[in-house]
Amino acid sequence: MPSTAPGPSTVPGPVAGSEEIRLQLRSWPEVEAYLAHCRGVIVPLGSTEQHGPTGAIGTDALTAEAVALEVGRRTGVLVTPAQAFGMAEHHLGFAGTISLQPSTLLAVLHDVVLSLARHGFERIYVINGHGGNIATARAAFAQAYGTAAARGLPGAERLRCRLANWFTAGPVMREARDRYGEREGHHATPSEIALTLHLEPSLTAKQRPLPEAAPAGPIHGPEDFRRRHPDGRMGSDPFLATADDGARFLELAATALSEDLAAFLGPEGDAG
Amino acid sequence: MPSTAPGPSTVPGPVAGSEEIRLQLRSWPEVEAYLAHCRGVIVPLGSTEQHGPTGAIGTDALTAEAVALEVGRRTGVLVTPAQAFGMAEHHLGFAGTISLQPSTLLAVLHDVVLSLARHGFERIYVINGHGGNIATARAAFAQAYGTAAARGLPGAERLRCRLANWFTAGPVMREARDRYGEREGHHATPSEIALTLHLEPSLTAKQRPLPEAAPAGPIHGPEDFRRRHPDGRMGSDPFLATADDGARFLELAATALSEDLAAFLGPEGDAG
Amino acid sequence: MPSTAPGPSTVPGPVAGSEEIRLQLRSWPEVEAYLAHCRGVIVPLGSTEQHGPTGAIGTDALTAEAVALEVGRRTGVLVTPAQAFGMAEHHLGFAGTISLQPSTLLAVLHDVVLSLARHGFERIYVINGHGGNIATARAAFAQAYGTAAARGLPGAERLRCRLANWFTAGPVMREARDRYGEREGHHATPSEIALTLHLEPSLTAKQRPLPEAAPAGPIHGPEDFRRRHPDGRMGSDPFLATADDGARFLELAATALSEDLAAFLGPEGDAG
Amino acid sequence: MPSTAPGPSTVPGPVAGSEEIRLQLRSWPEVEAYLAHCRGVIVPLGSTEQHGPTGAIGTDALTAEAVALEVGRRTGVLVTPAQAFGMAEHHLGFAGTISLQPSTLLAVLHDVVLSLARHGFERIYVINGHGGNIATARAAFAQAYGTAAARGLPGAERLRCRLANWFTAGPVMREARDRYGEREGHHATPSEIALTLHLEPSLTAKQRPLPEAAPAGPIHGPEDFRRRHPDGRMGSDPFLATADDGARFLELAATALSEDLAAFLGPEGDAG
Amino acid sequence: MPSTAPGPSTVPGPVAGSEEIRLQLRSWPEVEAYLAHCRGVIVPLGSTEQHGPTGAIGTDALTAEAVALEVGRRTGVLVTPAQAFGMAEHHLGFAGTISLQPSTLLAVLHDVVLSLARHGFERIYVINGHGGNIATARAAFAQAYGTAAARGLPGAERLRCRLANWFTAGPVMREARDRYGEREGHHATPSEIALTLHLEPSLTAKQRPLPEAAPAGPIHGPEDFRRRHPDGRMGSDPFLATADDGARFLELAATALSEDLAAFLGPEGDAG
Amino acid sequence: MPSTAPGPSTVPGPVAGSEEIRLQLRSWPEVEAYLAHCRGVIVPLGSTEQHGPTGAIGTDALTAEAVALEVGRRTGVLVTPAQAFGMAEHHLGFAGTISLQPSTLLAVLHDVVLSLARHGFERIYVINGHGGNIATARAAFAQAYGTAAARGLPGAERLRCRLANWFTAGPVMREARDRYGEREGHHATPSEIALTLHLEPSLTAKQRPLPEAAPAGPIHGPEDFRRRHPDGRMGSDPFLATADDGARFLELAATALSEDLAAFLGPEGDAG
Repeated sequence: MPSTAPGPSTVPGPVAGSEEIRLQLRSWPEVEAYLAHCRGVIVPLGSTEQHGPTGAIGTDALTAEAVALEVGRRTGVLVTPAQAFGMAEHHLGFAGTISLQPSTLLAVLHDVVLSLARHGFERIYVINGHGGNIATARAAFAQAYGTAAARGLPGAERLRCRLANWFTAGPVMREARDRYGEREGHHATPSEIALTLHLEPSLTAKQRPLPEAAPAGPIHGPEDFRRRHPDGRMGSDPFLATADDGARFLELAATALSEDLAAFLGPEGDAG
Repeated sequence: MPSTAPGPSTVPGPVAGSEEIRLQLRSWPEVEAYLAHCRGVIVPLGSTEQHGPTGAIGTDALTAEAVALEVGRRTGVLVTPAQAFGMAEHHLGFAGTISLQPSTLLAVLHDVVLSLARHGFERIYVINGHGGNIATARAAFAQAYGTAAARGLPGAERLRCRLANWFTAGPVMREARDRYGEREGHHATPSEIALTLHLEPSLTAKQRPLPEAAPAGPIHGPEDFRRRHPDGRMGSDPFLATADDGARFLELAATALSEDLAAFLGPEGDAG
Repeated sequence: MPSTAPGPSTVPGPVAGSEEIRLQLRSWPEVEAYLAHCRGVIVPLGSTEQHGPTGAIGTDALTAEAVALEVGRRTGVLVTPAQAFGMAEHHLGFAGTISLQPSTLLAVLHDVVLSLARHGFERIYVINGHGGNIATARAAFAQAYGTAAARGLPGAERLRCRLANWFTAGPVMREARDRYGEREGHHATPSEIALTLHLEPSLTAKQRPLPEAAPAGPIHGPEDFRRRHPDGRMGSDPFLATADDGARFLELAATALSEDLAAFLGPEGDAG
Repeated sequence: MPSTAPGPSTVPGPVAGSEEIRLQLRSWPEVEAYLAHCRGVIVPLGSTEQHGPTGAIGTDALTAEAVALEVGRRTGVLVTPAQAFGMAEHHLGFAGTISLQPSTLLAVLHDVVLSLARHGFERIYVINGHGGNIATARAAFAQAYGTAAARGLPGAERLRCRLANWFTAGPVMREARDRYGEREGHHATPSEIALTLHLEPSLTAKQRPLPEAAPAGPIHGPEDFRRRHPDGRMGSDPFLATADDGARFLELAATALSEDLAAFLGPEGDAG
Repeated sequence: MPSTAPGPSTVPGPVAGSEEIRLQLRSWPEVEAYLAHCRGVIVPLGSTEQHGPTGAIGTDALTAEAVALEVGRRTGVLVTPAQAFGMAEHHLGFAGTISLQPSTLLAVLHDVVLSLARHGFERIYVINGHGGNIATARAAFAQAYGTAAARGLPGAERLRCRLANWFTAGPVMREARDRYGEREGHHATPSEIALTLHLEPSLTAKQRPLPEAAPAGPIHGPEDFRRRHPDGRMGSDPFLATADDGARFLELAATALSEDLAAFLGPEGDAG
Repeated sequence: MPSTAPGPSTVPGPVAGSEEIRLQLRSWPEVEAYLAHCRGVIVPLGSTEQHGPTGAIGTDALTAEAVALEVGRRTGVLVTPAQAFGMAEHHLGFAGTISLQPSTLLAVLHDVVLSLARHGFERIYVINGHGGNIATARAAFAQAYGTAAARGLPGAERLRCRLANWFTAGPVMREARDRYGEREGHHATPSEIALTLHLEPSLTAKQRPLPEAAPAGPIHGPEDFRRRHPDGRMGSDPFLATADDGARFLELAATALSEDLAAFLGPEGDAG
C-alpha cells in the first residue's frame, strides 16, 4: 500500500514533451507508479459566477485550471480536474452564478482530500481562482485533518494541504498594480479578465468600455452585493485587459506558484 | 425578475458559427437575455475514477462534458461547467480515484439546481457519464424539489430536473453491443474508452491487449470491488476501442440526447 | 465476536411450523445463535403516501412487509421490522403522505446497515415496496460501505447490501401486464392494490370505478405532481384489482425474491 | 388548503365497529375529510433492541403500536405507521439491536412532523415505547418548530407535538410497582414483557426463570452497558410477566393516554 | 498517552487558597498533570434567552457557571468555560434571545465531549442551567458514545457523561417551594433570579412588582410561547427573589451537586 | 416588529457609569428598546486551547471577551456572551484543548447570526481572539447570508457581519513588534499572554523563562503540530509579557476596534 510509509517529497521536474500532467488522462497504474516517487498533487479550485457585464462567468475556474496545468507542466506534479463550482453566495443576484453553500464546499474539499490521502498523497496543493473560496477551503482542510486523525488513516500525521491563490501571488499583484493601478479593483479585475482573454481569445469580442465601477467594499449577502455593485464589478476596469497581459500573468503566477509548490513538497513543507 | 413567470420552453436551435454554448464563457447579461427565451440548461456530471489498467481516470467527466457540449451546440441550450468529481466510493481501492460521499454529491447537485432555479432556469438537464452517480443524482433532485417548495421559491412548481446518461441511450447501447458484443462489459467499457480516444488522441498510446477481464457483478464496497475486479475492469475489453468508434458514439449520443432534451423542454417536459 | 470471521452464507431453509422469522419476536441470544449459521437478513422498506382516491396510504409498507415475511418464511432468513416512512416528497401534495427527505432516509438506511454489520450480518437484503426509495437506498448503501471501510469495521470487506423491489420482479411485472395491460399504470397500480386487498380485506370496501387516470410521466416536485395527476394515480386503474390477484402477486414475488436472496447469500452474492 | 385556518380540536370519539383508525389503511381523500373535523394524529415510536435473554427485540415497537392503536380506537384519532427503529446506541453490544444515531432519529421525527404539518395536522401525539428515544424526540420537536417558523409554514404557530411514554403513565407505573415491586427494574421489565405476551402469545415459550439481574444504573456507551448488564436486563425479572398482566397494562395505558390526548386536543393543548 | 489506561477516579478535594479551578486559567502541562490523578471535568452549560420583563437574558449561563465553579472549588475538579448559547428556540419571540438549533447544540456537546475524551477525561459532568438544553444534551451524549466506540477511541468504554441540572437538585427545589410556593413557576423563577441577584447585585435595580404571570404550560414553537406567555414568564413571580435567597440556592446546589459528582467519579459512576 | 424596517445605525456612545453593556445582564424589554436606536451588536469569539507551557488555555476567550467589553463600554454597543469554544483541531494534541470541528463552529455562528437577525440586529460585529476561527467564521457568515435570503427573513438584505481580530489590528501588531520583535512569534505570543496577565494577575505566577521556541510554520493536523511545536509555542517568547504590556494592548485594541465598529455601523458599513 502506498500510504503506509512516508514517500519522497521532491518535485519530479518539468514534464517531457508528450508527457501528460493531467490526472484525468492517466490510468490508475500510472498514478500508483507516480506515488512511488512523489506524494504531491495539485487541485484546481474555481467558481462559476458573474464577472461584471463583460467578463466570463467561468473566469475563476478557467484561470485556476490554466495556472494549475502550467505549474504541473513545470514541476511534474499531477493536476486533478478542477472543481468548477465554488462558494459564490454573494454573486447569486446575477444570472448564471452557480454557488455551493459553504457547508457543501467544505464537504467537497474534505472528501477530495481524504480520497487523495487514502492513496498516499501527502501534499495537497489547491490552486484557487476565487477569493470567496478561501475561508471555506481553509475550514475544509482543518476538517479533513481532523477526520484523518480520528479515523487513524495511515499517514494522517504527514497529510498537508495548502491553498495557493494565483491572484494574490506577490509578482501577480505587483504586475497588476503596475499595469492598472487603482483600476485593478477587486472583482472582475483586468488581471483575471486578461488571463481569460489569453486562454479564450473569443472572449475579446465582449470587451467594451464601461462606466466607472462602483467602489469595492465589504461583501455580505447577494441583495446587498447587487445593490452596491449593480453591474457586478468591484472597482475594476476590465476593459484595460489584453490577451498579452494575460500571458504575462500566467507566466508570473506559474513561476511564483511553482516555487511555492517546490517548498511545500520539501521536507517540512514550509511554503508561504 | 426572470424567475417569477413561466418562460418559453422551446429549444433555441443550433448555435451559429462562433456562438458560444458554454455558460462559463458567457457574461451574466448574456445569461439574463438567454433566460428571456429559454429556461433550459445542461449540467455535465462526471467522475474521477479508475478505468482499468489502460483507461483514463477522467473518462466519465471527459465523455459527459463532450456529449453535453455537442448537445448544446445542436440545441442551443447552455452548458455549465462539468462537475468532475462524482460518487466513486467503490473505486477508492485504486490509486487516483477521487470520490465524493453520496451525502456530499447530493448537497452539490442540490445547490447547483437551486442556484439555477433562483435565476429562473426551470429545466435542468444533467448529462451524466458515470453509473455510480445515478442514484445520488436522483436523490438530489428530490431533495432540491423539496427545498424549492419549502422555501416558496418562485417557479418551484415548474422546476424539473432530468438525468440523461449518455452511455445508456438506446442507440449507444445497441451500437456497443453490435461492435463489441459481450466484451463491452460494464466498467472501463470499449464504448466509453473509444470516446476518450476520439477526444484525446494521446490516450491511444495506452491501449494494449489485456487478459480477459473479471466478469461484471454487483457493486459493494471498495475492498470487495478490488478483490473481484483486480485490474478495475468489469467484463470489458477496452483494447477493442478505436477513436473512430468514439466519434460514432459521440454522434449517436448527441443525437439521442438532443431529441430527449427537446422533449424535456416541451410544454410538459415528458422526455424519456 | 460474530463479526470477525466470515460466516456461512447458505439459506437456512423454510421455517418449521411455529418458528418465528420476525427479528422483532426473537431474543438477542437467538439472534446470536442465528448468526453462527447465517449472515443474511431481510429489511422491509416501505413508504406512507397517497395511492390514488381509493388506495391505502400504507400500500408500500404493507406490501413490502408481506413479501418480506413470506420470503423469510420460505428461506429461513430473519426479517427486521419495516421502515414504514420512505422518500415520498413528490406525494406531499396529498393529505396523509409522510415523507423523509432523501438525506434523512439515507441516514436511516446507513445506520440500519451499520447496526446490522456490527453484529456480523454480511448480507443485507432490502425488500422495497416504493419506487421513490430506490435512488436514496442505493446512495445509502454506498455511504454505508464507505463508513464501514473508513471505520475499519471488522468484516467491512464482506458487507453487501442488495435492493430488491418486489414490484419489478420479472414474474410480477409479466403477470401485471397479462392481467391489466396498459391499465397497470405506474402509481396506485392494480397489482399493488390487489396485494393490499389480499392482506387487508376491509380495503375492498374502498374499491369503486374511477375515471381514466392521468397518464404516467416524469416525476418532479409535489405541486407539479398534483397538477399532472390530480387524483394521485399515474395511468392506473386500481378498480381492476382483486384480493385473489393479490394472493397471486404475493406468490410470484415471494418465489422470485426467494431465489434472488438465495443467490445473494451464495459465495459471491451475485444475485440479479 | 386544510392548513391555512385553525381546525377544530375535539376528540372525534370512539370508532364505530368497522371503522379503520390506521392512517395506512385510509385513502388520501379520507384523510382530507378527517382534517376537516380533527387536526390531531398519533405517531407510534418504538425501538428494535435487545430486551434481555428472553424478551423480544421488538418489544418497544410492538407495545408502542398496540397502545397507539387502542388509544386511536377509543378516541377516533388517526394512527400513523410506527417508526420501529429508534435510538438504541447503548444496546448495540447485543446481537439484533438496530439503532439510529440521535442525529438521524432527530431528522426522521423532524421530517414526519413537517410532513404532517403541511397537511394541516396541528397536534402530533407521539406514543413512545422506549426511554432512549425521549431526549432525541424532544430535541426533534424543537427543531421542527424552528423549521416550521423559519419557513413560514401556514399554521406554524398552532403546531404542537407531545411525547407520551406509555410506560411512565401514572397508573401503569403504579400497577407495575404493585405487581412486581423492585423486580420491575428498568429494562426488559415485566410490565413491557407482559404486554408483548398479551400481543404475541407465542412469546410465552421464551419465558423461563432467570438469575437475579444486574442492578439498574446510569446508561453510557454500548461496551459499558454490556459490562454492567451482561444479559441485557437492568434490575428486572421478566419471568414474572404474564399475558393477563399485559392485557391489564394495555387497558391502563390506553385509558391514561386517551385522557391525555383529549386534553392535548383541547383549545390550549395543555395535557400533562 | 494519558488516555490509554483507566485513571483514578476519586475527587481531588477542595482547592487550596489560591489554586485555580478554571481550566481556562491552567496551562496544558498542568492539565496533563491533573489527568494523572483525576479523570473528571465539569462543563457548565447555559443559555442566552429572555427571562421575563425584569430578569437577565444571561440568567442560565450565569447560574450554571457559578454553581459549576463552586462545585469545582469544593471538589477540586476542573471547570471548563461555559457554553453560554444553548437551545432556546421557543424563546426566539423575545428580543435578545440567541438560540442554537438542537442539531447544532448536539454537535457542540459531541465535539466538546470527544475533545475531552481524547485527552483521557472519562467523566464529563455537565452542570446545566436551562431546561431547554436537557433533551439535546442527553442526545449529544448518546451520539458521542457512539462516535467514540465507532472510532475505537482508547478508553471509549470508560467514557461517561452526566447531566446535572442545578435547578432540579432536590434541596434546591424544596427550598424554592418553601420560599415561593406556587409563585416559583417554571420560567424566570424567583430561585434562578435570586441567584443572579447574588452574583450580579446591579441586577437588583431591575426588580419591580409584576402582574400575575401567565400560567405554565407545555412548550411548543416561539409564536405559541409568546402568545401564551406575553411577558416571557411561566407562572413565576421573580419579584420575590432576593440576593440572600440566591446565596442560599448557590449553597444548596453546590452541596447537592458536589455529592452527586463524587458519586459519579466513584468506581461505577452511579450518581443519581 | 423591530426587524421589518431598517434601523438607525449610529454608535450609541459611551455607557454612563452604571449602565450595563453585557446583553446577558439585560432584560428582553431593554434589548427591544435598544433596537429602536441601534441595530449593532458585538459577539466575542474565543477558543479553549493550549497556549504553550505557561500560557492559559482560555487565553483566546479571555482576551476576546475583554476587548469586546471595552469596545462595548466605549461605543455603547451591546456585547453578547462569548463563544468560548472555537476551532482548535490542530491543538488537540495538547491536554485541555477543546475544539469544535469547522462544520460545528460554522453551525454555531450561523445560528447566532440568524437569532440576532430575527430580532432586527443588522450589524453583527464578531470580536475574535483566535486565528484558527477566522476561516470558519467567514464561511459561517456566507452561510448565514444565504439562509437569511432563502428564508426571506425581513431585513435579510441589510444583514452584515464583520470579523474583527483584535490581535491583527494595526496598532496592536505594531506595538507587539516594537516591544518583542521576532520573539512575538505566532502562537502563545507575548502580546496575548500580556493581556491575560493584565486580566488575571494570578497567571503571572506561571511565567518563567523558556528555551527558544520552535519556529512558526504552516499549520496542519494535530500530530504534525505537536511534532513541529513540542511545547505548543510557535516562535514566541511569552516570558517577555507583563501585565502592564497587557493593559497597553487592551487600550490599543479597544481604540482600533471602536473606530472600526463605528465605521461598520455607518450607512454603508464599510469598515476595514
